[in-house]
Amino acid sequence: MQLKSYIQGRWFAGEGEVQQLRDATTGQVIASASSTGIDFKATLRYAREVGGPALRKLTFHERAALLKQLAKKLGEFKEEFYTLSYATGATKTDSWIDIDGGFGTLFAYASRGARELPNSKVYIDGDVESLSKNGTFVGQHICVPLEGAAVHINAFNFPVWGMLEKLAPTLLAGVPAIVKPATATSYLTELVVRRIVESGILPEGSLQLVCGSLGDLFDHLTCQDVVSFTGSAGTAQKLRTHHSIVAHSVRFISETDSINSCVLAEDARPGQPEFDLFVREVTREMTTKAGQKCTAIRKAIVPAAHADAVVEALKASLGKIVVGDPRLENVRMGPLAALSQRREVLGRISELRREAELITAERVDIAGGDLDHGAFVAPSLLYCREPRKAKALHHIEAFGPVCSVVPYESTTEAINFARLGEGSLVASVFTADDALATELVLGLAPLHGRLLVVNRDCAKESTGHGSPMPALVHGGPGRAGGGEEMGGIRGVMHYMQRTAIQGSPQTIAAVTGRWTRGAVQKDPGRHPFRKAFHELQIGDSLNSGEREVTLEDIEKFAALSGDTFYAHMDEEAAARNPLFGGRVAHGYFLVSAAAGLFVDPPYGPVLANYGIDRLRFVKPVKPGDRIKVRLTCKTKSLRVEKGYGEVAWDTEITNQNGEIVASYDVLTMVSEQPVN
Amino acid sequence: MQLKSYIQGRWFAGEGEVQQLRDATTGQVIASASSTGIDFKATLRYAREVGGPALRKLTFHERAALLKQLAKKLGEFKEEFYTLSYATGATKTDSWIDIDGGFGTLFAYASRGARELPNSKVYIDGDVESLSKNGTFVGQHICVPLEGAAVHINAFNFPVWGMLEKLAPTLLAGVPAIVKPATATSYLTELVVRRIVESGILPEGSLQLVCGSLGDLFDHLTCQDVVSFTGSAGTAQKLRTHHSIVAHSVRFISETDSINSCVLAEDARPGQPEFDLFVREVTREMTTKAGQKCTAIRKAIVPAAHADAVVEALKASLGKIVVGDPRLENVRMGPLAALSQRREVLGRISELRREAELITAERVDIAGGDLDHGAFVAPSLLYCREPRKAKALHHIEAFGPVCSVVPYESTTEAINFARLGEGSLVASVFTADDALATELVLGLAPLHGRLLVVNRDCAKESTGHGSPMPALVHGGPGRAGGGEEMGGIRGVMHYMQRTAIQGSPQTIAAVTGRWTRGAVQKDPGRHPFRKAFHELQIGDSLNSGEREVTLEDIEKFAALSGDTFYAHMDEEAAARNPLFGGRVAHGYFLVSAAAGLFVDPPYGPVLANYGIDRLRFVKPVKPGDRIKVRLTCKTKSLRVEKGYGEVAWDTEITNQNGEIVASYDVLTMVSEQPVN
Repeated sequence: MQLKSYIQGRWFAGEGEVQQLRDATTGQVIASASSTGIDFKATLRYAREVGGPALRKLTFHERAALLKQLAKKLGEFKEEFYTLSYATGATKTDSWIDIDGGFGTLFAYASRGARELPNSKVYIDGDVESLSKNGTFVGQHICVPLEGAAVHINAFNFPVWGMLEKLAPTLLAGVPAIVKPATATSYLTELVVRRIVESGILPEGSLQLVCGSLGDLFDHLTCQDVVSFTGSAGTAQKLRTHHSIVAHSVRFISETDSINSCVLAEDARPGQPEFDLFVREVTREMTTKAGQKCTAIRKAIVPAAHADAVVEALKASLGKIVVGDPRLENVRMGPLAALSQRREVLGRISELRREAELITAERVDIAGGDLDHGAFVAPSLLYCREPRKAKALHHIEAFGPVCSVVPYESTTEAINFARLGEGSLVASVFTADDALATELVLGLAPLHGRLLVVNRDCAKESTGHGSPMPALVHGGPGRAGGGEEMGGIRGVMHYMQRTAIQGSPQTIAAVTGRWTRGAVQKDPGRHPFRKAFHELQIGDSLNSGEREVTLEDIEKFAALSGDTFYAHMDEEAAARNPLFGGRVAHGYFLVSAAAGLFVDPPYGPVLANYGIDRLRFVKPVKPGDRIKVRLTCKTKSLRVEKGYGEVAWDTEITNQNGEIVASYDVLTMVSEQPVN
Repeated sequence: MQLKSYIQGRWFAGEGEVQQLRDATTGQVIASASSTGIDFKATLRYAREVGGPALRKLTFHERAALLKQLAKKLGEFKEEFYTLSYATGATKTDSWIDIDGGFGTLFAYASRGARELPNSKVYIDGDVESLSKNGTFVGQHICVPLEGAAVHINAFNFPVWGMLEKLAPTLLAGVPAIVKPATATSYLTELVVRRIVESGILPEGSLQLVCGSLGDLFDHLTCQDVVSFTGSAGTAQKLRTHHSIVAHSVRFISETDSINSCVLAEDARPGQPEFDLFVREVTREMTTKAGQKCTAIRKAIVPAAHADAVVEALKASLGKIVVGDPRLENVRMGPLAALSQRREVLGRISELRREAELITAERVDIAGGDLDHGAFVAPSLLYCREPRKAKALHHIEAFGPVCSVVPYESTTEAINFARLGEGSLVASVFTADDALATELVLGLAPLHGRLLVVNRDCAKESTGHGSPMPALVHGGPGRAGGGEEMGGIRGVMHYMQRTAIQGSPQTIAAVTGRWTRGAVQKDPGRHPFRKAFHELQIGDSLNSGEREVTLEDIEKFAALSGDTFYAHMDEEAAARNPLFGGRVAHGYFLVSAAAGLFVDPPYGPVLANYGIDRLRFVKPVKPGDRIKVRLTCKTKSLRVEKGYGEVAWDTEITNQNGEIVASYDVLTMVSEQPVN
């Protein structure tokens, strides 16, 4: 079967010489790929001119809803994907990480998008910045989608997750993607893209697929495009110095090699739960996906005193791993993805053996498989007895079931061994001692993108050393490429331009759709709580009547709430307080009385006041002071298909001198339609 | 005078061939520079091994205090700096931007650091991330200082501000800097660094200065270093493809060429205030620093209908500019910084004249100056009558008093003309129409780092088109280099590594110093409000007694607060509300009653409850429900020399079923020492 690329809304069969792709276990040719003949300039143009505009018409919530719909739809084809996935060498568990993990990432971004982004098109980044004395000139950062294409160059090990973990934040940002999977396993990505295209869920032009090479695509990049690369450091270096990337400062997100460490802390002696957890984790990381994970453990850094015990335990544990055809139920580890990978990994093992002893057998029985045609490599544990002299250990990533045990003499040395990787995606620490955990984490942090601390309390629910999570950044400094993916909304921002805007508060409010102090306060014509969501306008304001705060109010409030703090009840003690200098009203009374001043009692569209943000008591209120409230519609975000929207009200309580005494945002849920 | 470099704690005179630096007005040699003989590998090592550790010992607040102290101290030498600054060609007003602007940036970062960063060493980025069902495993992002050096390569136009705007966020992050000013004006930077070194304010090793070239410094960079470059795109491209930068994914922040636009919107006709404001701004941007600002206006994009009027007004306005020796009081514009700059700018004007007509005189009178020796260029206004055919206009940055008037037919075309710059630092828009402002801002945003909207309301307090502000990001995509500087705390993060940490809540709390739900609740031994700041421990908890909420409470609270919202007072109406299904207690009553349950009334170390963050009413409370409160010491941040610290308390109100009904952070000020 010749794989096709999906370009400019059509499936396209490449011409000329085609690359043959083989089943990892049997070596049988199962597909071929070629991208020759694709007009890459037109591909980019199509993304920019068709996909981008279509996505930018949607709000963040609408894009989030597409992701959710897509995740659900793809779930219907799970069995088909799992079946084809065996050809990549993946066991069922491996496929679960790739396939279900990918869908999970879509769901996670759908849910974060709806929860953490507004139901609008401009992301407001941070608070209004004061830039002038009288407040007539202010600043605000906003983020808008880049108007180019996101070019995703993915690795062979996760043909599904690798695509979806980049696609989710990209689409949520409103940017179209051109996906180029690693050719070796692109048949699975192609199948998933077929199902995506058939579903018709994504707007036309928002996803294109290149099976094969990217040709001259890079020549046509501009500053509005983003390249997100996963693969070898060598390729990354070549691409990031491409003249177009350099000339146009094209954003280049890179996730490359990584020599990840797993540190057994000094407290975790044999017999301790953390010791066993460590052995289990190293075994799992070596064998899952046959060790073909950029996050897999390459160095098991252990106290010298327990190094022999660790080696023995790992050897025993690895001895139980059944290697073979991943289609067999008892097989725990399949082949590498391709014979070329096996050649490379075996070469790297040879290099490592100059510094370390191979503890495990070079050859193992292959269940239902064929060593001549399948890309099998035995789980390979090395023991580096003299790590202070070692070099390859810290620089060579054998991208297979390979890990070296590295004994250390002190926690400082353990940290140094991990840091010699010169920048890694992840390290983990096994310890029940939080002081040791803190020392290790802070020592490792500057050189790592993610750090995992496992102890007996969290082990059961731990997501593991090797699993990037949608909520957390994935990437690392130095050798790991210096990039960052995911990390929740952070990952969305990689595809957006942050711009500082400056102007009058009213202009800033108009551009952002968020009312800010100094902007026009509109007269809503009636009590704003009588307006339904769609009737409310940003800036609609209520200016309440005045209320005197009496000593009796304070006494009654103290009695009712039980809050008899001296500042409210004891004149002499309150006078000693440097901030009050006498009895003051309860802050909680002020917000309560403010509600009394602004609430509209009868049944209406305001369903609930579900919270308050950023309440600050700015100035004390003393008996005899008179307070009033201003309440202004600040932001509106409709909840799609929920029948209501969230409305935040900028609220200020002032005293008889016009001084602000309290300031906060009142958060309400307001019915979409008028109610009676 | 030969300038010296400040390297490894000593002033160092370069050997061999020295570069001669001349007064911009008179051409007299005033200094020479050479960095030959500096051991750059040792320079980097000194920063990493001496400066870095010293800075990392300090908390953010302590570093902020150093910046403030430094700004104050440098203020004492202002006159000396102003006097030397004339040699660069700067008028007094120009120097004000450079010198006072630089000090202002130090002050701004000092104040933001103390306000927005904790008084500790680890920056906690965002909220705890839930990663497990039962909450035994969570995630958290932290940021720690990179453990390398920040190499600042600065432009010649702002020898003081250019250094300080990078130094402030770098030092605040805890990272030492190696500053390399552009040689042409490095004598002023050298003088400022002399005063900094003499002051003894900064820890040894945190600042080194290279007057001359950087030699082989780049060969020794690692992934813990950062290069922050300001200068030409050509140099940036050469540096960012340096093998060390590429091999180690060294962070490279780049701020380069930029063809900035200023758009006169269609509503701003002659006679409107915005028209006059536009003319004033373009004149100012052309002549301030003789147009040698990366943010200066290069394209004045105006409605075709008013283009002639704009040209006339600008011609008149520019005609009044007195050009000459900046030391003379009546001089409004000095020479360029060097004769080589003049040659370059005159060459670029020639190129622009192929597409545009030079409106202003080629030669003007030079007050007190000498055209043969001084680097003078006349303010040069060009009029590009056929911008649709123009090319140079959008690609050539004439780094001097040069600007082209570009007529447009529609707002869309105006946006396109600005976007043809392929990525700019800033654009401004002059309009009184906020709908037009919104259209222009959103159209320009993807290609700009900063956008300014000026109208009659904000003009008086506007900080102007050309002024980067410490609170706002400075940088832009594409041609502008793709970097970002400043932007408040964002700029600090460029010098820190973000790391996702995962583990049990207790481990995360131990590492971050912030209590999180699921971590250990400590028994403080007495009411935690009786503990002074230094006695309180993260995790100290109070579990209150229970209180029944009665209908009488609700009635009394309604009467006292005046809040008679139907959900509290009208059973029938409340029953119709989908969230409540019957009368419920006021949310404000719950937090009031909670205070009643947790407050310790007598005089004590808790000075005030100054606010609440993130209050959410999670579940309604009905008459007969019984509530109680848990209050846990979440974060502590000491206010240096104020006698108190800020303590936030994680607070949860639960009902008789253990369900959370409200959740928030109580913010208090707690006395540093015990009180009686």
